Amino acid sequence: MNAWDSVAIVGVGLIGGSIGLGLRQRDLAKEVVGCGRRLSSLDRARRCGAVTRTTTDLADAVGRAQLVIVCTPVDRIADHVVEAMANAPADVVITDAGSVKGLIIERVTAGPSVSDRFVGSHPLAGSEKTGPENARADLFVDRTVVVTPTEHSAMDATASVERLWRELGARVKRMTADDHDRVVAVTSHLTHLVAAALAGTLDVEEGALVGTGWLDTVRIASGDPELWRQIVAMNTDSVLVALSRFENQLGRFRSALERGESAALMELLETGKRMRDALGS
Amino acid sequence: MNAWDSVAIVGVGLIGGSIGLGLRQRDLAKEVVGCGRRLSSLDRARRCGAVTRTTTDLADAVGRAQLVIVCTPVDRIADHVVEAMANAPADVVITDAGSVKGLIIERVTAGPSVSDRFVGSHPLAGSEKTGPENARADLFVDRTVVVTPTEHSAMDATASVERLWRELGARVKRMTADDHDRVVAVTSHLTHLVAAALAGTLDVEEGALVGTGWLDTVRIASGDPELWRQIVAMNTDSVLVALSRFENQLGRFRSALERGESAALMELLETGKRMRDALGS
Repeated sequence: MNAWDSVAIVGVGLIGGSIGLGLRQRDLAKEVVGCGRRLSSLDRARRCGAVTRTTTDLADAVGRAQLVIVCTPVDRIADHVVEAMANAPADVVITDAGSVKGLIIERVTAGPSVSDRFVGSHPLAGSEKTGPENARADLFVDRTVVVTPTEHSAMDATASVERLWRELGARVKRMTADDHDRVVAVTSHLTHLVAAALAGTLDVEEGALVGTGWLDTVRIASGDPELWRQIVAMNTDSVLVALSRFENQLGRFRSALERGESAALMELLETGKRMRDALGS
Repeated sequence: MNAWDSVAIVGVGLIGGSIGLGLRQRDLAKEVVGCGRRLSSLDRARRCGAVTRTTTDLADAVGRAQLVIVCTPVDRIADHVVEAMANAPADVVITDAGSVKGLIIERVTAGPSVSDRFVGSHPLAGSEKTGPENARADLFVDRTVVVTPTEHSAMDATASVERLWRELGARVKRMTADDHDRVVAVTSHLTHLVAAALAGTLDVEEGALVGTGWLDTVRIASGDPELWRQIVAMNTDSVLVALSRFENQLGRFRSALERGESAALMELLETGKRMRDALGS
């Protein structure tokens, strides 16, 4: 039995395409409408089976939707949520897949419509590969998805959003938007800036001596700069706090090196190893 | 036809074991003697076919060696090179596999023997996995090995060392020890410190929101802390210069974030992406 009659996915890139594929392969939705600006992306999403119908008209896409998932670039999400809300049935449930939550919720709440049908999400899944052609029905399996209801969120809307991610195989973690933004500032946004800064530290002629260690450490610096510019711009305060924490830790390494303090250096290296080893292989 | 009658490998871990396997599988040496302190490592090296004979006595190992490769921890290499030189035939060629070159050469040159038979090497290959049981005959294939002859090095010794690495499939890059140490301070030693500092910045309870990006970025922080403590301690001046360069680059990110300078932030992210994309997939 289908969980939803009509689901609209706004933005059919890697994330939107993977949600569509996951819904279709698990027979969770009768209809999956893909909405986007570019006909070529929409065509690719339809050809790979991620959506059953496509449109460039958001109002058309959400017209009879029970569930809308907005997967557009993070600085467009709030506008698309507000537009979906204005054009969807009154009992629609809307979520998103943005890497920042606080500012999106703030903007949606400031909009003209009642916002209790919107519950933000952030799937901690992705890839440097983009576009619906890289979509995978199992992209969210065993991944964490943070869901950030507010005091205004309708309980049934929160339940529907959490069901969506669980049906796609994810672990759901409920958090406040502020807590989410503070933690991903460290785990994700700072990590991206550090990788980009480290890659940017290298001179071209030094590139001959990079090994697999360097390549792995700065791999994520390959990500779309515009996407990451938007993300850190929308979470600047928390990113600056995270950056200060990192600078402090790096300063401890500098101090141990300058003073030749072997034991302090060893302790710092062990702290890093302990944390890395604790969190996965 | 064998290139060498007798090769001694001092220290049969991942690197020493892989050199032995590579020599044996390519039929490059009649005899490969493995020398180490621990009988268990020596047994594993012999069982996996990396060496034909083992001994815990360095003088015995190098007694009739034409080629000696010292693969012990970086702060022991100079002592082992000097000891090998004192006990090997006069026309022996000695190299090492240490990640730092200047201080090793300085210490060897300060030793009692004539040092023109020693030519330092640094294979840019390795793994978090250690021990001869993880050795691979192809570990050096298509990898860069830096060879650092000095003005005192005998030409035939340099040629033998470069031949060794080429026979094992590596690309040889000849550099001065100082240039090598300056460049790997950025590409490798700084990279390790940054990964360890980033891992150490995380609080335990934030670990629930780490994704594959964080795990990749700090993967090398899993490396042996004692090994890395030795490496950075032996290359402190260059590592501090590299650290300053990274701190400057990171400071540019901070400044762009604090001032909300979108274009500057975009340029910094693009610089990192350009360098990463230029150096491999």
